[in-house]
Amino acid sequence: MKADKILLDHGSGGKASERLVRELMLPAFSNPILEKLDDGASLDINGTRLAFSTDSYVVDPIFFPGGNIGDLAVNGTINDIAMCGAVPLYLSAGLIIEEGFPVAELEIILNTMSEAAKKAGVKIVTGDTKVVPKGAVDKIFINTSGIGVISQDICVSGSNARPGDQIILSGTIADHGITIMTQREEFSFDAPVSSDTASLNHMVKNMFSASKDIHVLRDPTRGGIGTSLNEIAVQSKIGIKIYEKSIPVKKEVAGMCEILGFDPVYIANEGKLLVFVSKEHANKVLDVIKQDKAGKDACIIGEVISDNPGKVILKTLIGGERILDMLTGEQLPRIC
Amino acid sequence: MKADKILLDHGSGGKASERLVRELMLPAFSNPILEKLDDGASLDINGTRLAFSTDSYVVDPIFFPGGNIGDLAVNGTINDIAMCGAVPLYLSAGLIIEEGFPVAELEIILNTMSEAAKKAGVKIVTGDTKVVPKGAVDKIFINTSGIGVISQDICVSGSNARPGDQIILSGTIADHGITIMTQREEFSFDAPVSSDTASLNHMVKNMFSASKDIHVLRDPTRGGIGTSLNEIAVQSKIGIKIYEKSIPVKKEVAGMCEILGFDPVYIANEGKLLVFVSKEHANKVLDVIKQDKAGKDACIIGEVISDNPGKVILKTLIGGERILDMLTGEQLPRIC
Repeated sequence: MKADKILLDHGSGGKASERLVRELMLPAFSNPILEKLDDGASLDINGTRLAFSTDSYVVDPIFFPGGNIGDLAVNGTINDIAMCGAVPLYLSAGLIIEEGFPVAELEIILNTMSEAAKKAGVKIVTGDTKVVPKGAVDKIFINTSGIGVISQDICVSGSNARPGDQIILSGTIADHGITIMTQREEFSFDAPVSSDTASLNHMVKNMFSASKDIHVLRDPTRGGIGTSLNEIAVQSKIGIKIYEKSIPVKKEVAGMCEILGFDPVYIANEGKLLVFVSKEHANKVLDVIKQDKAGKDACIIGEVISDNPGKVILKTLIGGERILDMLTGEQLPRIC
Repeated sequence: MKADKILLDHGSGGKASERLVRELMLPAFSNPILEKLDDGASLDINGTRLAFSTDSYVVDPIFFPGGNIGDLAVNGTINDIAMCGAVPLYLSAGLIIEEGFPVAELEIILNTMSEAAKKAGVKIVTGDTKVVPKGAVDKIFINTSGIGVISQDICVSGSNARPGDQIILSGTIADHGITIMTQREEFSFDAPVSSDTASLNHMVKNMFSASKDIHVLRDPTRGGIGTSLNEIAVQSKIGIKIYEKSIPVKKEVAGMCEILGFDPVYIANEGKLLVFVSKEHANKVLDVIKQDKAGKDACIIGEVISDNPGKVILKTLIGGERILDMLTGEQLPRIC
């Protein structure tokens, strides 16, 4: 049954989000580019292949260990463009600020955005600022959109996974989501965790230098790797098998998940990627990822199978197998 | 003195906005493309000239006579791209929705966005939806970003106005702003006014078919024509003289302005443009604009002079002359 009100679930990145997109957005905006459902659109303009992506950042709190809403917004859209196989070049920044917001905090956020852009070699070239009366927005929301160029010999898409592909995860999961949770007023943990927010475009560029046999790239943000893997299984009409024992989780993050009753596979990441690559090139690509500071804990966590199309099978620690479904329900709103 | 808190003024599109951009944004994001301060960025990618622009829409109320936040968001960014002299091609849509927002209203907004995009011949190719808890945003905010292609023989910028240029305004002013004001709870007018929201890209395309001697294009949205003309006078380091008697204002809009004590030159428009064109080609361009449904009231409202660089001189109805300054202070927040 179709909901008559928008619920927090609709923004979770999980099942309800997917339904909202399928039932409302796609019919309204119907076009083949949007229907590919990748992290960004792949366009052809005068023979140049462009990637174009957008994301709004509404994270709460706006400052957290490891970053703030500024670098989150810059890195997030850079990564979405990189996940299209593109070299990100230009970003826009659209700020919506609540009346009374401290200028000193805005300056910190803008400088963090600037530093993140510089680090990634990307320019912020256009922007917009709206100020709304007190209470019309909570502090500050930032939209970033971006464009990048896709080389002619690269072909990545969520629909390109093939049986036999090895699945590489670039590092530990759930760091960002758990960090945000520990910072919320309703909790009061003093845990030694911090967000993994980072731009991954240099890592992606080096991966493509090592191999063009990369089929899928995805950054598992909202909804975690559980949701991303399910999306890819559906898009590519293949099965995915992953090994719980291979998935890296920091000890302190795993501990927090246990206390809070969360499954880390559904928790948001902001500086990690999933790569689907041919078996022959998997180790070569893994080596390149491990050379990157943000990829030192990378490992192969599973593979693509031809059985169970559209499903993700998790081989559990104790040797059982279960279907790993998409995230249902909202764990915590405003995670990014 | 620098403010220590963000005020509504900072989002007015007027003087305080300009200071915020100059004192905070430009130093943080310092790069020559952004510093041009046009409606969008002009980029060169592999020899193709692209325009790239972004805008967030926070209008209150979200439904109003003549449109809703959906077509406003689509038309607004299409126009910003067209004002770069570009043919707009692709848009992104970033929605931030308050928990509990009626799905039926969202459907209307999405369909209106779709219709506006179709009318303009532009595709919405990528998007993002965030849902935030009740109270964290007022109903719905929409960011659109867009890209378009600029033909090699077109050269428009706010810094290109030249003495002798004629200034064409494409129609009546203040329709959008006054319409929004009449819809606010704090007022209760039942005036026969409606928003002029419209995409102007087809009009711009036809203008360039008539003449390549167009130097500046600007859609006078927040801050009205008063602010846009001042921006151009500063960017181009020229003087501008305009004739009050030539500026078209609908009778009912002028009446509302008088009742409310507003100067229509500072009130927002959403389907109008200003063109600076060489004297020789002015009538040719004017004729083309008048053939467009959205341009039937177009007329020449003034010219560029070499005296008074950076200033806008208004020749008043009774024959006097006064300096028309930028908008100072915020007339009404959330106008677009």
